[in-house]
Amino acid sequence: MKKILFNEGDIMNIIEAYNDAQYKVAGHGSTTTNLLVEAMMEKGMNLEKDVYGTGPIINDFEAKIAQVLGKEAAVFYPSGTMAQQIALRIWCDEKQIKRVAYHPLCHLEIHEQDGLKELHGIETILLGATYRLFTLEDLQTVTKPLSAVLIELPQREIGGQLPTFGQLIELSNYCREQKIALHLDGARLFETLPYYEKEASELCDLFDSVYISFYKGFGAVSGAILAGSKAFCETSKVWKRRYGGDLYSLYPYIIPADYCYEMRKDKMADYYKAAVTLAKRLNECPHVLTIPEVPVTNMFHLHFDIPKEVMEMILASMYVQSGVALRPSLKGTPIGCYLEISVGDALLEIQDEVIGNGIEVLKKLLSNI
Amino acid sequence: MKKILFNEGDIMNIIEAYNDAQYKVAGHGSTTTNLLVEAMMEKGMNLEKDVYGTGPIINDFEAKIAQVLGKEAAVFYPSGTMAQQIALRIWCDEKQIKRVAYHPLCHLEIHEQDGLKELHGIETILLGATYRLFTLEDLQTVTKPLSAVLIELPQREIGGQLPTFGQLIELSNYCREQKIALHLDGARLFETLPYYEKEASELCDLFDSVYISFYKGFGAVSGAILAGSKAFCETSKVWKRRYGGDLYSLYPYIIPADYCYEMRKDKMADYYKAAVTLAKRLNECPHVLTIPEVPVTNMFHLHFDIPKEVMEMILASMYVQSGVALRPSLKGTPIGCYLEISVGDALLEIQDEVIGNGIEVLKKLLSNI
Repeated sequence: MKKILFNEGDIMNIIEAYNDAQYKVAGHGSTTTNLLVEAMMEKGMNLEKDVYGTGPIINDFEAKIAQVLGKEAAVFYPSGTMAQQIALRIWCDEKQIKRVAYHPLCHLEIHEQDGLKELHGIETILLGATYRLFTLEDLQTVTKPLSAVLIELPQREIGGQLPTFGQLIELSNYCREQKIALHLDGARLFETLPYYEKEASELCDLFDSVYISFYKGFGAVSGAILAGSKAFCETSKVWKRRYGGDLYSLYPYIIPADYCYEMRKDKMADYYKAAVTLAKRLNECPHVLTIPEVPVTNMFHLHFDIPKEVMEMILASMYVQSGVALRPSLKGTPIGCYLEISVGDALLEIQDEVIGNGIEVLKKLLSNI
Repeated sequence: MKKILFNEGDIMNIIEAYNDAQYKVAGHGSTTTNLLVEAMMEKGMNLEKDVYGTGPIINDFEAKIAQVLGKEAAVFYPSGTMAQQIALRIWCDEKQIKRVAYHPLCHLEIHEQDGLKELHGIETILLGATYRLFTLEDLQTVTKPLSAVLIELPQREIGGQLPTFGQLIELSNYCREQKIALHLDGARLFETLPYYEKEASELCDLFDSVYISFYKGFGAVSGAILAGSKAFCETSKVWKRRYGGDLYSLYPYIIPADYCYEMRKDKMADYYKAAVTLAKRLNECPHVLTIPEVPVTNMFHLHFDIPKEVMEMILASMYVQSGVALRPSLKGTPIGCYLEISVGDALLEIQDEVIGNGIEVLKKLLSNI
């Protein structure tokens, strides 16, 4: 295979090829500590630091985001993992039922070392199937009592798919009828707004509690907001302290979060459009399918029906020949492999012809398979 | 009382008087976000950011501190609350006993909203009495099996008292005999070294796991290290992820932690000496007793046998008249009130006569009582 596709000199490690490439397509292009320096110089000089959740830096930002989300209150957290476990625990305590439901590829189920179960003993019901969004029908098949349902918008692990707004309303109405709390995993909530053509608050209205992240589409350093009623947020602060998340000072995350929020909140439509265009071009290559085929946010998964090891060589070759690089690694699937693309400032700053050339190179390499 | 002590114009809010005072005695004098800017400019420009616990910024710092503490490995945490709960949980799992013992005023018992109990269901045994250090005899009276004992050096809530090194060895030997893990709450470990005349590693040798903080004597922004064996640290990383403490990037805390560690690690003896001198001078005032009477670290508690409300007026008056301010608030006790002094750069930078004058003013005010 190697001999057919590559000259000896071409064979390269995909990570090295990625690192050497001039045009990295995914994300915002910043991987250094300079982001924090920039944010501090711009918005963080000479301010009184926040202390244990008090002070204008944290309280003003919480109030600002609460208003944007249309919620009574909001609490800044070092991480979404902490925020979401706490949200679900609060709903379980309130309903006196230690059981919640969410998608099989929910962050809490696959990326948190089972914190929800290990720290809270909360049982989880997986709704629907791994490869698709769950539906109202999936939820209606659950016979055990639930305290909360978590919906992730977009569903990251299946390429960032979204239900329609109508489907969300149906799910929300059902949960309200059944007295099940509805929690939004909105790690990438703002990235969905151009597709829904809604304000954040219109989406959040359908949910009892909302988490958003600042280091996905916003590209900040770390940090999250958990929003809901005043009572919910006050209870969440007790848990935040229990978790060790009520840090002496959180300003090193809040200031870049605010800085990046302001910088990028109005660029989500541009990222989305660029993702649609990029996916369309990539889908013209053989052996390629993007999921979703037409992206509904700034992200999609790029699937290849080619073994991972082979595809790594092909991509390394593409990166070297064109200077255009997608990602430094691939994940295996039963029929091949895939990578995730999140569109941010990086792609917007690359000339169209450069991207076109990169994809042409990829198309040629794949045509030889 | 007011009429006897003060002219009408003198009566002032202690917080305002503190804020207005030119010479603030406690801490390092920095309360703004500029510390982070300074640390980033000095040590944090143009570095590849850490990602989920990997990368040189985090791994090099962990290795450096592990070596200083004489432990195989170390893990950086956003907070000590998280680090210590996790340490005790690991020992409970290893020994298969959900019970630990510590001082009645242990941080986990009084400052963490019962996280250890709520998140882990760990039972706690309180050793000795609130007003003194616990001893080997106190520990020997415990009849129930224990997985771990936590010793806090210095015991902050009683003014920063310390057992002798010999007493520590006895406690350590007993725990080893009994197969009880010994954990060090070393939030202020480096502050104890001048008194013990030991290296950090000599103290840590007596313990199975060690936590240190970077925003106490070191004066960084936030953050902690948990150190121990390689296996212990690897397990702790699983829990760190469960807690949501495995942040996307921790460099905003690590860079200032390293910066402040280097800046202040060799100044602990100066802080200690200055605390001893300051306590001696304060003890010459009537109605005053410091605990410990002779400090053994950079900290002590300043007790007054005068009601809190009256003492607030007296201190406000001292701050206004002398420009020297101790703390902005007092805590009530059954016989009066107290405040905590932690000596850092601030005191070292104030001229001796200025402090002397402040204490003279206080002495005069207290002599009128």
